[in-house]
Amino acid sequence: MHYQIVRYILGMVMKVEAVLLLLPFLAGLVYREPQAFSFLIMAIVSAVAAFAMTFKKPAKFVFYPREAIVSVSLSWILISIVGALPFVINGDIPSFTNALFETISGFTTTGASILEDVEALSHASLFWRSFTHWIGGMGVIVFMLAIVPMTGGYNAQLMRAESPGPTFGKLVPKVKESAKILYLIYFGMTLVQIVLLLIAKMPLFDALCMTFGSAGTGGFGVRNTSAADYTMLQQAILTIFMILFGVNFNAYYYLYLGKDKKQAFEMEEVRWYLIIIAISTMLIAVNVRSYFSSAFEAFHHAFFQVGSIITTTGYSTVDFDVWPTLSKGILVLLMFIGACAGSTGGGLKVSRVIILWKSVRQQVSQYLHPKSVSVIKVDSHTQEKSVVTGVLVYFALYAFLFVGSMFVLMLDGRQDLLTDFTAVTATFNNIGPGLAGVGPAKNFNALSVLSKYTLMFDMLAGRLELYPMLMLFVPSVWKKH
Amino acid sequence: MHYQIVRYILGMVMKVEAVLLLLPFLAGLVYREPQAFSFLIMAIVSAVAAFAMTFKKPAKFVFYPREAIVSVSLSWILISIVGALPFVINGDIPSFTNALFETISGFTTTGASILEDVEALSHASLFWRSFTHWIGGMGVIVFMLAIVPMTGGYNAQLMRAESPGPTFGKLVPKVKESAKILYLIYFGMTLVQIVLLLIAKMPLFDALCMTFGSAGTGGFGVRNTSAADYTMLQQAILTIFMILFGVNFNAYYYLYLGKDKKQAFEMEEVRWYLIIIAISTMLIAVNVRSYFSSAFEAFHHAFFQVGSIITTTGYSTVDFDVWPTLSKGILVLLMFIGACAGSTGGGLKVSRVIILWKSVRQQVSQYLHPKSVSVIKVDSHTQEKSVVTGVLVYFALYAFLFVGSMFVLMLDGRQDLLTDFTAVTATFNNIGPGLAGVGPAKNFNALSVLSKYTLMFDMLAGRLELYPMLMLFVPSVWKKH
Repeated sequence: MHYQIVRYILGMVMKVEAVLLLLPFLAGLVYREPQAFSFLIMAIVSAVAAFAMTFKKPAKFVFYPREAIVSVSLSWILISIVGALPFVINGDIPSFTNALFETISGFTTTGASILEDVEALSHASLFWRSFTHWIGGMGVIVFMLAIVPMTGGYNAQLMRAESPGPTFGKLVPKVKESAKILYLIYFGMTLVQIVLLLIAKMPLFDALCMTFGSAGTGGFGVRNTSAADYTMLQQAILTIFMILFGVNFNAYYYLYLGKDKKQAFEMEEVRWYLIIIAISTMLIAVNVRSYFSSAFEAFHHAFFQVGSIITTTGYSTVDFDVWPTLSKGILVLLMFIGACAGSTGGGLKVSRVIILWKSVRQQVSQYLHPKSVSVIKVDSHTQEKSVVTGVLVYFALYAFLFVGSMFVLMLDGRQDLLTDFTAVTATFNNIGPGLAGVGPAKNFNALSVLSKYTLMFDMLAGRLELYPMLMLFVPSVWKKH
Repeated sequence: MHYQIVRYILGMVMKVEAVLLLLPFLAGLVYREPQAFSFLIMAIVSAVAAFAMTFKKPAKFVFYPREAIVSVSLSWILISIVGALPFVINGDIPSFTNALFETISGFTTTGASILEDVEALSHASLFWRSFTHWIGGMGVIVFMLAIVPMTGGYNAQLMRAESPGPTFGKLVPKVKESAKILYLIYFGMTLVQIVLLLIAKMPLFDALCMTFGSAGTGGFGVRNTSAADYTMLQQAILTIFMILFGVNFNAYYYLYLGKDKKQAFEMEEVRWYLIIIAISTMLIAVNVRSYFSSAFEAFHHAFFQVGSIITTTGYSTVDFDVWPTLSKGILVLLMFIGACAGSTGGGLKVSRVIILWKSVRQQVSQYLHPKSVSVIKVDSHTQEKSVVTGVLVYFALYAFLFVGSMFVLMLDGRQDLLTDFTAVTATFNNIGPGLAGVGPAKNFNALSVLSKYTLMFDMLAGRLELYPMLMLFVPSVWKKH
């Protein structure tokens, strides 16, 4: 481990956060809230720390995978700690554990909350809470790469470590350019959603925060009822945009900026993503028909919940914990599938499920024709064996971490099995609400401190796709070389 | 598909079943029960059918994997249908669906029951019910190979298709000899258990049936209270033998008949199996301490339940559905892990979990040292890549089938999620009781017909390790060639 490099990268990330912390400060100023100053204080602290950490450039920029991967995981932990302190300082969330839970939940775009009463928070805090979703959705490292001038060939490694999905395809040869393009698309779509919500007469503050939450597929709202109080038109706009932000961003790149626009429609992952949404919505709409006064309303709420859960956003318009078993079961299943790779969503990712499925088909055909050689193709590209094995092992690791987390939560002994199971499901897949004790009408505050830190780990592990967080526990990673 | 060969093998299996059906007939005669004759009837019918099916030998014995695998899955379906009919004929289980469920549950050593009142059954039926466990435990095909003289090089393929575990290691070069040795060990251990239970003053009929149930790791009892009414000594004998029958039989081969007895103690799988049992027992014993009058009693029941569940037997001495979350959670986890490969137990098998874990470790080290080449070793033997990939894909397929089954059960809409989840867990892993609606104090009768047939598929798929049952749904398997 080259500690100098890690220190330098962490410093650069702190610089970025110092700037970002000014936004909630400004939001608070508009509402003349004293709480706003806690964000200014932390912005200054961050800036000073960042200056100290980046003052001395590393002697040499030798970069191994471990430096990249540890830099990314430590960056996320650091920004979360720094981002949590304003809540503690201004008293909106006095407990540090709770503040950290809320901030990690924000950056990882989970949206699981420990707050009993969201509306009691200052506007500054609410704004920051939602804004962490927006940053975390596309990635703080990607953001840094897009705006901070950095030299060295390690940019690609950093970006790979933070980007979701089984493979990492740069849009254009240069990493900096790729990062810029991604944020350009992201920013553009965010703007369109804000404007549409304003046209649909959502108040500005709500429109901003709810857009941050859907763009990052996070799920923090600004009202205790999540998205239930908004008009059906506003809810419909949220549904559409949640689903759009769950699409592999490569599709948008092909569509807006690429030469061959057809490519966007030929992406297998996107096609399956939309098929799964359509089928799930239909099934749930029929299943919950009796819960609503019209078939249209049933469809509307089924569509919202499906879009919210598969994209791992976690907004809700109804308490789906009271829905029938089939509907709840489908939603839990969608929690695991998750959105597309290369989107802001979490979960296993549709592309991984596709590769898992194709591996099974391949094995069946090998069983029948032992001498034949077959390959797995996605979008008519042959997948390298290492990628396929990577996905298979990812799934195994996913299961191990899941079971391990479940185990710690069960130690509590306070919750029932379904609560423990869906609490891990909802945080590990970066969704937000689960079922039963952590259902959409409840929150995560009742859990023990140990459980909360376990779920914080799960949220970070889920967002960074397991390995970066796991590496922190491998002793050989920390050896100097 | 060479249909002649499949027909011939099915005929041979029927011959075996015709003989086996005479045992419950004799048991019934002892108790002078009219119900006994239903078994004689079916024995005669089976014999006649078997004669017709094997009268004409296949023209040629060209044997591809598909013939072996389809023969095995169809054999299991056929023996279950034939084995279910006596229950219907003698009126002990009037509904064919229920009788088939009970018989498949028997042969697959699941032990999930649809019976409200076990004690209302005739002794003949109770005997048959338990005896199916004994046959299914080591395998009806293996049994056939051991006793029926068959020529052709396909024996190994048949045995492989029926034997549990990621790899298939014949004990000795000749398949027939291997099958004989396995049944010899199996028979010997069964005998010892019966004798010990008799010494511990268990009535003969109970001793026979409970031994069949533990030897096959099945779980059907002859009393409504499962194993709760027996003395602590009797329960302790059951515990020990359940655990012994969950050990990889290769260990016994090394121990009794092999030249190098040390090999038995060097088996990683067996070591981990025992470690998991020890840790789980300790944790649960502490967790349920307050439910019992003494620490010893808590340990006794924890040990019994752990042994029963990890070996996928499913006997119970207490209603563990009322235990705290941690204990229930550990038991559910053990349901997935299962016993050792090459034992009579079900589940994923400890060896698969070991290979999954080592794959994860390998991936982590590859992440850190991309250029290094590493292999996965078990018992200091390097595992072939195809075996490791096989295990990884097996796990994915396992998850797909699990989710698919869950989905069908949820369509019912009658049960809650935990019932659906543990119903699939308990049948797919060949355990027996689940939690909530299908807990140890309940049964599977309340489920819909569709759910019952889905769980029957799961039981067979779990016992035959997924592929044989899956192959039945691959159209190309059925093409003539």
